[in-house]
Formats: sequence, structure tokens, C-alpha cells
Amino acid sequence: MTMDYDRLFSADVPSFMRSPVREIFRKVKLSEICSFAGGYPATVTFPVEEIKRLPGVVLEKYGTSVLQYGSTQGAMPLREVLSARYGVPLANIQVTTSSQQGIDVCTRILVDPGDIILTTEPTYLGALQSFKAYRADVRSWEAPLTEEERRRVKFLYVIPDFNNPSGETMPLPERKALVDLARKRDCLIVEDSPYRELRYEGEDVPTLYSLAPERTLHLGSFSKIFAPAFRLGWIFGPEPVLEQIFVCKQALDLCPPVLDQYMAAEFMGAGALDANLVHTREEYRRRRDRMLSLLERYMPEGVTWTRPEGGLFLFLTLPVGIDTVALYDAALARGVAYVAGSFFFLDGSHRNTMRLNFSFIAEEKMEPGLRTLGEIIAGAMA
Amino acid sequence: MTMDYDRLFSADVPSFMRSPVREIFRKVKLSEICSFAGGYPATVTFPVEEIKRLPGVVLEKYGTSVLQYGSTQGAMPLREVLSARYGVPLANIQVTTSSQQGIDVCTRILVDPGDIILTTEPTYLGALQSFKAYRADVRSWEAPLTEEERRRVKFLYVIPDFNNPSGETMPLPERKALVDLARKRDCLIVEDSPYRELRYEGEDVPTLYSLAPERTLHLGSFSKIFAPAFRLGWIFGPEPVLEQIFVCKQALDLCPPVLDQYMAAEFMGAGALDANLVHTREEYRRRRDRMLSLLERYMPEGVTWTRPEGGLFLFLTLPVGIDTVALYDAALARGVAYVAGSFFFLDGSHRNTMRLNFSFIAEEKMEPGLRTLGEIIAGAMA
Repeated sequence: MTMDYDRLFSADVPSFMRSPVREIFRKVKLSEICSFAGGYPATVTFPVEEIKRLPGVVLEKYGTSVLQYGSTQGAMPLREVLSARYGVPLANIQVTTSSQQGIDVCTRILVDPGDIILTTEPTYLGALQSFKAYRADVRSWEAPLTEEERRRVKFLYVIPDFNNPSGETMPLPERKALVDLARKRDCLIVEDSPYRELRYEGEDVPTLYSLAPERTLHLGSFSKIFAPAFRLGWIFGPEPVLEQIFVCKQALDLCPPVLDQYMAAEFMGAGALDANLVHTREEYRRRRDRMLSLLERYMPEGVTWTRPEGGLFLFLTLPVGIDTVALYDAALARGVAYVAGSFFFLDGSHRNTMRLNFSFIAEEKMEPGLRTLGEIIAGAMA
Repeated sequence: MTMDYDRLFSADVPSFMRSPVREIFRKVKLSEICSFAGGYPATVTFPVEEIKRLPGVVLEKYGTSVLQYGSTQGAMPLREVLSARYGVPLANIQVTTSSQQGIDVCTRILVDPGDIILTTEPTYLGALQSFKAYRADVRSWEAPLTEEERRRVKFLYVIPDFNNPSGETMPLPERKALVDLARKRDCLIVEDSPYRELRYEGEDVPTLYSLAPERTLHLGSFSKIFAPAFRLGWIFGPEPVLEQIFVCKQALDLCPPVLDQYMAAEFMGAGALDANLVHTREEYRRRRDRMLSLLERYMPEGVTWTRPEGGLFLFLTLPVGIDTVALYDAALARGVAYVAGSFFFLDGSHRNTMRLNFSFIAEEKMEPGLRTLGEIIAGAMA
């Protein structure tokens, strides 16, 4: 019996976006190429021995309740260590099942089809996927708006620290301007901050949450400081908004993974996270520096790139006219993957840019990969 | 600075329902009362030693990829053991971050505000929460529909095995009638099946998925056969529908918890699940039998109850006119909690019913709890 499934889908479904990055990973075996594409952390940063030990530790400490259903808001020991580390009151902390869920649930409770989300650019693809899936009207934060449009602005989305994809950090004056804009538009700010702990040089800049706690939803993640397998993140935000997120989350998945939360709490609270971060930052600083020096060596004149103070990415700009989307298949055929920069722009512009990840690629592949990429770009420029 | 947050919430937010069960747990300390309220599994059924051992086992077997981001569709070893155990092709299996997420994502991709979901009654509260949060128009499967309404029917929701809350199992002729109805309405079936492995007597009845695989989304759960802490479930369904769930799930949380999936795969594949199930079923059969005999002893004449062949619940019917919602505070004051049955009916009717859970309560509390409950009911009847 054949069925017409299309008839049954919701009106949101045609707006669902496939992640071009995840589609790349469906098609190729990572082990067979030099991939600068994904945003995976280096497996050497995972605290493997801790992770083997932690289930026993938390079972001993808390008993079998760590295997039961848990609180929707998050396990108290985890909320307590987050509160202590970041100086945020317990009532302003919601644990999420990944910071992607944080993005999704903020959009879910705030956005109706046609509502406007403002974003800085370039911006995170996974956020655009969530926004589009709710049929939001996503605009550049700098775009002019009519009076009617202003009333439909729900929040301003930004990754101020070590932006994905550009690697750049927003300086304080720009953060203040952004808060001013949010006040003017009377909208919230969603501050996506998965990389903030990964700073390799320079000084921390105050979070938007610290500048405007009454209107900021600050999203954090354990994926880059513990392990992505755990799908754990958090939201700091004003109580009236967290209250709706709480009720929404009951219906989404009841509670975040419980044993994982206790393990994360123990890892963070007992100092193991800080010890591991020292080693993680060293690893990534070294990789970033190596990538910067290899780019100097292999990129033809006319190519420029960002010099991130932290995070996992840097962003290449080729001469105008060179199209990284068009070059992609040729690069893959020569065993090199990247993500075309235009995917991170709302209008698909900036086709002469690309995102390179330096955290995940096997170190021995970095040089041959960038040499090949340099040749491909030089060929296209010729 | 005070903000008008209400102005910013989506039009769905006023339809969000708080779970009355989860609200009970916010207010009382479970250890201080005799609670027949929640749907928690018994902690003695958790395979504690396995859970301590499994991270080391899967890290040894698969390497550090078990700590990395994973496939959106679910980790291959887990999909393989699910496929082998239940005889479902790999392409028809999506792993979910809890079976609550299964309910939510099915609703998300199928339902627009005003669309109709048909349900058997009484039915699972967490499903009603998801349905209402998308502003579905939820109707009894037996209610008459106009021609226009028929076109808006998206799916039929049912818990055929050991229903939550009634504990009852749908016999085969009724399952066939339900499939016929779905064919007539040309809609899908969402078969919610978290308890199917927990049968204490009698014979398995074929799943709706086996009767109508082309139109059934079958939801399974590890919460009752491994541990709820893991937030892992699965969907079996037709590929064109799973494809949309897959794309939606990228934006929801990228992938289910990865280490947990490998642990579940190892637990299920290596035979430990079956060994643990023997002991789990024995434990619950004993508890069910004890509750049935205590009800015989302590309930006044005129009270009846279901005799479930499996699952975690039974359902009490008091004489018409006795209101379990009104009795609730008095019961709680005397240290006994239950869930009023009317919460599980769309129209809030059946106020003379209640759900009792027999899996979670400490065994020594079962007798005093039911004795007190019997006294309260007898008092109300007097």
C-alpha cells in the first residue's frame, strides 16, 4: 500500500534545512580525507580515564538516584557547580540536552512563523537550521527595519566569543552597541557561547549576559570542555523566560540525561575540568599556530584569514570571484574538505570565503591538506 | 529594568501544560510520603554493576569515537541490536533522546495548530503535553468527525501494551479495528510502547507496527528496561517519515547521547538486557500481585481496579460521585500520593478514578499507603 506522506507533514517541514556539514559526513569517510570541515573537538582532549571512573564515583556518592528520571531543570549538583563557576544564581540556570537544544527551545518558546530574529554574520549553521525550522524571518542585525517589522523582532542571536565560523571575538564596544540595539528593539539576546572556555591568548571580554542579564539567554556547552557525546549544555537567563523553557522541556524530553549530568558535575566540581582545560588549551593553541604558519607557507598571495584568540575555527577570504562552493567537489576529489563560507551568510553571499577547523584533523594531515588546498586555490586564481 | 516578557512569547506558549505529576514532585519529598504517583521504575532493577563497567568496555571496543559527536540517526551498533532484536530494517530505525522526544518530534513534523490527533482514553499525560504545546486539537478516537475535520486528522495515538494509566492491553481485534480506522482516515498511527518488554503473564499481542508498518510510528524506550537516566528511545517507521524526523532532529539536538547509546547497545547485544529483564519482570510481578492482594484487603466494597498483565500501573474506579481530585490534598496530608484519573481524559471526566503505580514505592510503604488510601476512600463514601 502506498501512502501520500507529504499530505500529512506540518507546514514547517518544507522549511527544514539539512546541515551541509552533516551531509558531507554522510557521504565521505573522514579517515580517508583531510577534513577541515566539521567542528569536532580533538579526541585527545577527552578525559578518557575520568569518564571510565566517574559512573562508579557518582553512584558511590549519590546512590542509584543518578540512574533514575531527574529534575526537568537539571540535576542540582550540576546546577550548583555551574552557579559556583560562573556566579549565576541557581534560579537562573536551566540544564539542556545539548546547547543545540538550548537554541531550539529558545526559538520554540519565542518565535511564531514570520517573527524576526536578528543575527550577526557569518553565523552558526545549526542555529539557522533551528530558526528556519520555525519559519522565522532571519535578518542581519544591521539591516534597516520598518516600524511593523520592529514589533516582530524576538531576539538577537550572536556568538561573541570565537565565532563559528569566523573565529573572531566581539570587542566590548561592539557588545555594548549590541545590547543597546536589543534595548532599542525591546528584544532578547541569545548569546551562544560554546567556546568561551577555549581562549589561547588575550583577555576575556565581558559576556552579554553580564551586561544585560534581564534580556540575555546565555547558552553554554559541555561539548568542547568535557565531551560532545554527553549532549549537555545550559542556559542562563531571566526567570520568567526560563519558566517557559522549563515547561516546554517537560514535553520535549522530560529531563536532560541524568548520569551524564552527575558525571559532568563531578568532573567540573572536583577540579578535573580545570586540569583538563589546561591541556586542551595547549593542544588547540599549538594546532592553531601550526595552521597559521602553514597558511603563510601554502596560501597564494591575495588570500587572507582571521587569527582567532580561541575556539576551533578560522576563516579564509580568497580574492573576489573565486567561488569556494564551485571549488568544493574538486577539493573533495583531491581528498580535502572544508565548509564554504557562504553557508554562514543569510543571503549565501561571500562565496569567496571558507571555514577551516583546526581542532579535529589528524596532525599529520594538516600540512598535506593545506598544501593541496593552496594548490587548488592558486589554480582557481590563475 | 523591568521587561514585558509575555509580549515576546510565541503563540504556542499559552497552550503549554504543566505535568500535574511533575508538579507533585516539585512540592513533596518522595522519601517522606507513600507515593503511588509517578511512573518511575524500581531502582533495584537498574543494572548498576554493568553501568559502572560499560564505559570501559565500549571505550575498549570502539575507541574514543564513543565520546565524539555521533550520527543523527543513532549509533550504528545500537541500531543494529535494535534491528536484530525486533526484526526491523536499519533504514526504518531512528534513535531518539528519550521516547518523550519521539512523541514530541512526531508531533512537530506532523501537526499544525488546529490539526487533529485522535487518541484512545485514558492516555499518557506527557503525550497530551506535547500535543497541546503544538496547539493540536486532540479528540477521542471514537468521536464523530465532520468531513472537514477528517481532512485535518494527522495521527492516532495509542499505548496498546499495558497502557499508562490503565495498565490494560488492547486485544488483537481492537488493534485491527484501530488500524482500519487509521486507513479510513488516511492518517498515521503513533504506537507508544515503553512497557512492551514488561509482561508478567499472558501472551504478546502483535504490535500495530507489525499490522501496518506503512503507517505506524512505533516508539520504544530504554527507560524501563535499562535506566531512565539514559534518555534513550527509538522510532520504527516508514522511511519517508523518518527522513523528516532525521532532518528535524539535526536542529533539535544534533544526535542522541553517544556514550549512552554505545552502553545500551552493549547491554542489549551482549545478553545482559535479557538477563536483567528476567529479574525485573519477577520483581514487578511480585509487586503487582502484592498490590492486588492489598487492594482486596483494604479497599471498601464498590471500588474496582484493573488487573494488568504487565507495565507499571493499575487504575482504580471508585463509586460515581467520589472525586479523586477533591480528595487529593487530604490524601497528601495523610502522606499518600496518587494521580487523579481525570488528568488522563481529554475532558477531565472520570473524576472517580485514580492511577496507582506499583513499581517505585518502597515495599514496606505499600501496605500502610494502601490501608490509608482505603480509609480515605471509605471516609469519602460514607
